[in-house]
Amino acid sequence: MAGKVRSLVWTGDSLRLIDQTKLPAVFEFVECRRWQEVSDAIRTMKVRGAPAIGAAAAYGVVLGAMECRGETSERLIAAVAAVIKELAQTRPTAVNLFWALERMENILKAQEGKPAAAVIEALRLEAEAVAAEDVKACRAIGTNGASLIKNGDGVLTICNAGALATVDYGTALGVIRAAFVQGTKFHVYAAETRPFLQGARLTAWELVEEGIPAILICDNMAGWLMQQGRVQLVIVGADRIAANGDTANKIGTYTFAVLAHHHGIPFYVAAPLSTIDISLDSGREIPIEERAAEEVTHLLGHRIAPEGIGVYNPAFDVTPAHLIAGIITEVGIIEPPYRENLAEALKKR
Amino acid sequence: MAGKVRSLVWTGDSLRLIDQTKLPAVFEFVECRRWQEVSDAIRTMKVRGAPAIGAAAAYGVVLGAMECRGETSERLIAAVAAVIKELAQTRPTAVNLFWALERMENILKAQEGKPAAAVIEALRLEAEAVAAEDVKACRAIGTNGASLIKNGDGVLTICNAGALATVDYGTALGVIRAAFVQGTKFHVYAAETRPFLQGARLTAWELVEEGIPAILICDNMAGWLMQQGRVQLVIVGADRIAANGDTANKIGTYTFAVLAHHHGIPFYVAAPLSTIDISLDSGREIPIEERAAEEVTHLLGHRIAPEGIGVYNPAFDVTPAHLIAGIITEVGIIEPPYRENLAEALKKR
Repeated sequence: MAGKVRSLVWTGDSLRLIDQTKLPAVFEFVECRRWQEVSDAIRTMKVRGAPAIGAAAAYGVVLGAMECRGETSERLIAAVAAVIKELAQTRPTAVNLFWALERMENILKAQEGKPAAAVIEALRLEAEAVAAEDVKACRAIGTNGASLIKNGDGVLTICNAGALATVDYGTALGVIRAAFVQGTKFHVYAAETRPFLQGARLTAWELVEEGIPAILICDNMAGWLMQQGRVQLVIVGADRIAANGDTANKIGTYTFAVLAHHHGIPFYVAAPLSTIDISLDSGREIPIEERAAEEVTHLLGHRIAPEGIGVYNPAFDVTPAHLIAGIITEVGIIEPPYRENLAEALKKR
Repeated sequence: MAGKVRSLVWTGDSLRLIDQTKLPAVFEFVECRRWQEVSDAIRTMKVRGAPAIGAAAAYGVVLGAMECRGETSERLIAAVAAVIKELAQTRPTAVNLFWALERMENILKAQEGKPAAAVIEALRLEAEAVAAEDVKACRAIGTNGASLIKNGDGVLTICNAGALATVDYGTALGVIRAAFVQGTKFHVYAAETRPFLQGARLTAWELVEEGIPAILICDNMAGWLMQQGRVQLVIVGADRIAANGDTANKIGTYTFAVLAHHHGIPFYVAAPLSTIDISLDSGREIPIEERAAEEVTHLLGHRIAPEGIGVYNPAFDVTPAHLIAGIITEVGIIEPPYRENLAEALKKR
């Protein structure tokens, strides 16, 4: 879908999102005309993926501002500040959300005293910039990482770090797209990614649409694949990268990193610089979202586990930096030592 | 359910199985009156679990013999030999199937020249023995393994190695049941076990029925659980153990073994001696069943992955012996070196 359809589009008076809870069975848009609808879409994962959440939230702020079109500038700015606070409550782990909201807040603060229409316009321009920069970053991530994939490789990925997880093109799938376009002959193993099945529903869909050879597996098959020598490279996305390189990403990522380490397979993270949270010393400080038990006990509205069973449903895990061969960003592949090299990379932003 | 309901019951003229494809939503029996119905039940996993498959197949042979009640002894023996061959085609990995069928075949061969009714009776007695010995073995496995579980432990298991996977009581869950009855305070993490969800559907159900504290997780959460120090012990069942201790079990088991190794957590296999296949030098020789793509792409009859996606669906994997701390059997816990100690244990059978 890269280039053909974007995960989110600003229409001028609404944010149009692909409803990612309905794919691949139904391709349908959600039209958000109020900021609360954006908030709801993030919370219910109609839009998901760290960079996509960031961009969606930025547009949510614009919608919040537009609702106050008739207000005084002062009231508008106060109302938008409250909207930003609310949007920051939607999901805790992906730092891109807070990064994008901080950009919007900085713009907002700089508008004091200006007419309401000017404030709205400034916010809209900033949201457009967040989205446009993400598209550009993903293309650069693709270019920078493509040569990691060699002819004949089996490339394992988890969750969806594709066009749907970003504004377009993707991070881990950006690398895969770029290698494919360059003519490298390889195939992708897409792990289905329980409980939300982003791999089976979204990554598999993107790869089929793109014509990239791909094989769907259950998450628990990854170890056996590696033991059989079928995987040469693991590439995953990221939701938050701490200053020392520890990386929070979709639950299951850490298991893949341990497996890759055990089998001597390189494990790479692909993410824009906006995913790096230099304020956190290590992964221990990254808040890990726990989601509802029903995501595990129910499938397509049907109960699959018995009443009365306990459930643990963390949405993310943290992979320690020492298991990561490199972090593929828009300014190049960052390698250890991460503390120094991540700080250095951020200067290039 | 242990003791209250058996996974399979011989009624005198049929084999009554709990339909394990319908649990936990529906508790329903399948009444097999013909051997082909047993064959179908094994193939479609209405009955599954290595020891349960073995016992079901043994009763299938009895049903095959009963259908030839009116035949000459010679014809009956030829017909039953053909039934044994057919039942051996149902599933390739669990050795208990072939072990039980070999026992039935040996009885059959010893009956030459005897009247049809006597042959049938001899076969029925042998099937009853297979089932009764399995129940006894599971109880002994429980007793032998129970002390591995300590107060406060988190015990991780995969798939269903419970009463449903055996005739009653279970192997890995047999150990868990025994520790619980002895008053040890611990809780179980049941991995849901994609694609067939034996953990979510069957193990969770058994544990809730028994009142054993249990938490359901998705398979890809195991690594994160271990990183957080929540798992002190892993116990799994087995479908076939080679002479060197390499163990085939439900897909995902190998991943758990690698994770346990990485985190310094002991990893145990619980299985009756009938699961040991001394004829195979190592796990490389164990045939691994691949099942239909639809098990991965569809859930509850609904497509979850896009048309056109490739699928890899191995039903089992092989855990190398060096990752296994011990094999809990009815004659005690067998530790390395496995080649010597497994051969020694088999002499006690």
